[in-house]
Amino acid sequence: MKNLLLNIKGVRFAAVAAGIKQEQHFSENSSSKSLKKLDLSLISFIEGTTTAAVFTQNVFCAAPVLVAKNHLQNQPKALIINSGNANAGTGVGSGSVGLKNAYAVCQLAADTLGIKATQVLPFSTGVIGQPLPMSCFEDNIKQLVSLLSADKLPEVARAIMTTDLAEKTIFKQFKVANKTVTITGIAKGSGMIRPDMATMLSFIFTDILAHQSELQKCLTQAVNQSFNRITVDGDTSTNDACTLSATGTSGVNIDDCVDKFQQALNEVTKDLAHKIIKDGEGATKFVEICVRGGVSNEACLEVAYTVAHSPLVKTALFASDANWGRILAAVGRANIKHLKAHEVDIYLGSVCLVKQGEKAADYLESQGMREMAKDKIKISIKIGNHATEESVWTTDLSLDYIKINAAYRT
Amino acid sequence: MKNLLLNIKGVRFAAVAAGIKQEQHFSENSSSKSLKKLDLSLISFIEGTTTAAVFTQNVFCAAPVLVAKNHLQNQPKALIINSGNANAGTGVGSGSVGLKNAYAVCQLAADTLGIKATQVLPFSTGVIGQPLPMSCFEDNIKQLVSLLSADKLPEVARAIMTTDLAEKTIFKQFKVANKTVTITGIAKGSGMIRPDMATMLSFIFTDILAHQSELQKCLTQAVNQSFNRITVDGDTSTNDACTLSATGTSGVNIDDCVDKFQQALNEVTKDLAHKIIKDGEGATKFVEICVRGGVSNEACLEVAYTVAHSPLVKTALFASDANWGRILAAVGRANIKHLKAHEVDIYLGSVCLVKQGEKAADYLESQGMREMAKDKIKISIKIGNHATEESVWTTDLSLDYIKINAAYRT
Repeated sequence: MKNLLLNIKGVRFAAVAAGIKQEQHFSENSSSKSLKKLDLSLISFIEGTTTAAVFTQNVFCAAPVLVAKNHLQNQPKALIINSGNANAGTGVGSGSVGLKNAYAVCQLAADTLGIKATQVLPFSTGVIGQPLPMSCFEDNIKQLVSLLSADKLPEVARAIMTTDLAEKTIFKQFKVANKTVTITGIAKGSGMIRPDMATMLSFIFTDILAHQSELQKCLTQAVNQSFNRITVDGDTSTNDACTLSATGTSGVNIDDCVDKFQQALNEVTKDLAHKIIKDGEGATKFVEICVRGGVSNEACLEVAYTVAHSPLVKTALFASDANWGRILAAVGRANIKHLKAHEVDIYLGSVCLVKQGEKAADYLESQGMREMAKDKIKISIKIGNHATEESVWTTDLSLDYIKINAAYRT
Repeated sequence: MKNLLLNIKGVRFAAVAAGIKQEQHFSENSSSKSLKKLDLSLISFIEGTTTAAVFTQNVFCAAPVLVAKNHLQNQPKALIINSGNANAGTGVGSGSVGLKNAYAVCQLAADTLGIKATQVLPFSTGVIGQPLPMSCFEDNIKQLVSLLSADKLPEVARAIMTTDLAEKTIFKQFKVANKTVTITGIAKGSGMIRPDMATMLSFIFTDILAHQSELQKCLTQAVNQSFNRITVDGDTSTNDACTLSATGTSGVNIDDCVDKFQQALNEVTKDLAHKIIKDGEGATKFVEICVRGGVSNEACLEVAYTVAHSPLVKTALFASDANWGRILAAVGRANIKHLKAHEVDIYLGSVCLVKQGEKAADYLESQGMREMAKDKIKISIKIGNHATEESVWTTDLSLDYIKINAAYRT
C-alpha cells in the first residue's frame, strides 16, 4: 500500500541506478554500499502538457535551477532528476562547469527522446561543490528512456531520495460532472536538514486541462500554504524546486472547477510538506504553530516563524517541557509593530498557558506537561483581534540534530 | 588579580546573601546547596550623579524594567539588584504582584537610605513566573545599607551572577590634561543562554562630569557596538538592562574629551560583551562574523545575523568543519536586496574560501580545517563594494547547548 499511486495518462516515468551516489561516496544509512541505488530519473510528458514551477529564493541557486527557470517557458516535455550530486557551488557563470553540465544533461535527454534540449528541465540534489559525474548520465540515458512507463512513479519517488528515510507520495481525486480529475505528487526532503542535502524537491502531475498561467497561479498559492510554511532551522537550500504538470487527458477544463482543483492541490502539497517534517532526522515532535489576530497575515507569520526558530522553544519541545516563558519571550521579540502584551493569549493544544500576556490564572503545570508529552503538538497564539491567521509547521531541536549536522563531512 | 577594579569616587557598593537563590530552589553548579550565595546588591551614588540606561526591546519586559524606565528621569541615587528571581511573567499591570513588588523593593531601599523611592532603579534576574520573595529583601536591607563601601564592586559582580561561570569586570582609564578619568564596569549573562536566566545585566560607573543626555548618547552608541552585537541563539530576555552612571568626581568635563570617553566606553562594553560570549555554557568557540561592502550597515548586519543564527553554520563551527557551502547558503538567504552572487567573497581567518560567489580556485580543504580547529574564529564576508562594515560575535551550537536547555526545568 505504501507506494500506491494513481497513474496520470500522458506521463511516463523511469528510474535507474546510474552510480551517481556511489561516485560521490555518498554514505547513506544503507547496510550495503555495493548495492547500487536508484539515483537518475526521467519523466516524459505527452504533447500539450503544461508545466508550472516554483524555485528557491536563495541568491546562490544552483546551475540546474537556473537552467530549469530558463527552459520553463518552452512548454517542457521532460524532467530529468538526479540525486547524489546537487551540481551546486559549481559555478553559474557562462562557461562554468556547473552550468555547462546542467545544459549537457538536458541535451543528452533531448537527443535520446528526440526533443529539444530547451524542452527539458534538469533537477539535482545531493552533495555540493563537486562537478556532476557526466559519464553516469551518458552511460545510462538510453536505458532510462527505454524504461519509460506509466506506472514507474513509485521508483522515481525512491530515486530522488537522499537522506530521506521514506518515500513521500500522495494522490487526490475529485469529480466534475462524470469525469474524474487526479493529482499525484511526490517529494523528497528531510525535515532535520543534513547540510548539503537539504534540498526540497517535489513533482506533481495532474490530468486536468490548464493553461500554464492558471497552473502557475494555483501552484504558487498551494506552495505558499505548504512547502513555504514548513521550517526546521530557517536554512534554505540552493536547489529547492516544485513543479506541477497538467496533461489535459481527463478532459476536464480547470475553468470549470478551479476552486475544487485548488483545494485538492493544497491538500497534496500540505500532505507532502508534513511528510517532510515528519521524516526529519533527529525530530521527535511534529509541531504546528498557529498565530491569529495580527494586524496582517505577515505579522502573524513573523510571530509564527520567530517562535518556530527559537532554539529555546525548540529545545523545550524536545524536552517535553511546557515552558510558556520561552514562548512568551519569543513572541515578545518578534519583529512586528503594534504588539500589545495584554492582547496575547497562548494555548498548548486546548490548554491556556497565557491569558492577556500573563500566566493564565487556572493553568496547572501538569496540564501543560500532558500536552507536551504528545508527539504532535499545536501551539496557538492570539496576538490581537484582527481576522487573520497563519500556521507554520516545524520540529523540535534534538541532540540528534547536532550529532547529525556536526558529524557530517568530518 | 581576577577582581582588580578601580574605585569610582562617589559610588558605594554592597552585596549580601539574602536567600533569594535558595528561596527559589535555584540549582547552580554549586557543590553545597546549604552555602548561601550573594544575591542582593545595592549601589549608591553621590549627589549630582547622572545615570543613563538602555533596556530590553522585548514587548514582555519584566516589572522591574518598567519601574527602572519610569524612575530613570529622576536622577537616580541608588540601584538595587537581585539575582535568583527575575520578577518576570508576574504581571506588569497596575495592581499586579510583579509591579507592586518592584515598587516595594524601591521603597524599602529608599526608606533605609533616606531618599525617595522614585530615585531607586530596581533590577532582577533569575527564574521567571514566581513572585519575588519579599521577606528576603525586608530582612536584609538594613545590613545591605550598613555594608556600603567604595571597594565592594567585585562582590556585586559576583552577586549578580546566575548561570555565569565567572565574574565579568573591566576598567579603563584615560588622561585629560593632568586629570585621570576612570570607567569601571561589570556584567552578567551567559552566552549559551539558560532559558529563564538569559538576562544580560551590566552596570558601568565613571567619574567624568556629564549631563544625562550626553551620557545617554554615549551609552547608546557603545551598547549598539557591543551588547547589541552579540548573539547566541537570537533569543532575547525580558530583563536585559545596562546602566552608566557618572559622578563627576574626576573634575573632568565630558565636553573636553567626548571622543576619548566614547572610545574608552566602547572598549569597556565590547570587553564585557565578549566575556559574556566566552562564558557561554556549551560554547566551544568564540566566533566573529564581519560583513562589509553592503549597500548599508543594516544590510551588512542582516547578513551577519543570518550567518550567526544559522544552525547549520553553528553546528559546522562546533564540528570544526570548514563547510563553506553552509556559510554561502546562509548569505544567500539573508533578507536583503541587491545581493549579487558574483560579488560575494568569504574568508575564514586569512584563508579565502569563496571568491566571487564560487569556491576559491586555490582553496584547499586542509587550510580551512586548520582555521576551523582554532578556538577563536573570524568569518569575513564581502557582499559588495560599499564602504560599510559590521561585526557580530557568537558561539557554536554544541551538544551541551541542547543538553543544558532541554534538561533545565524538567
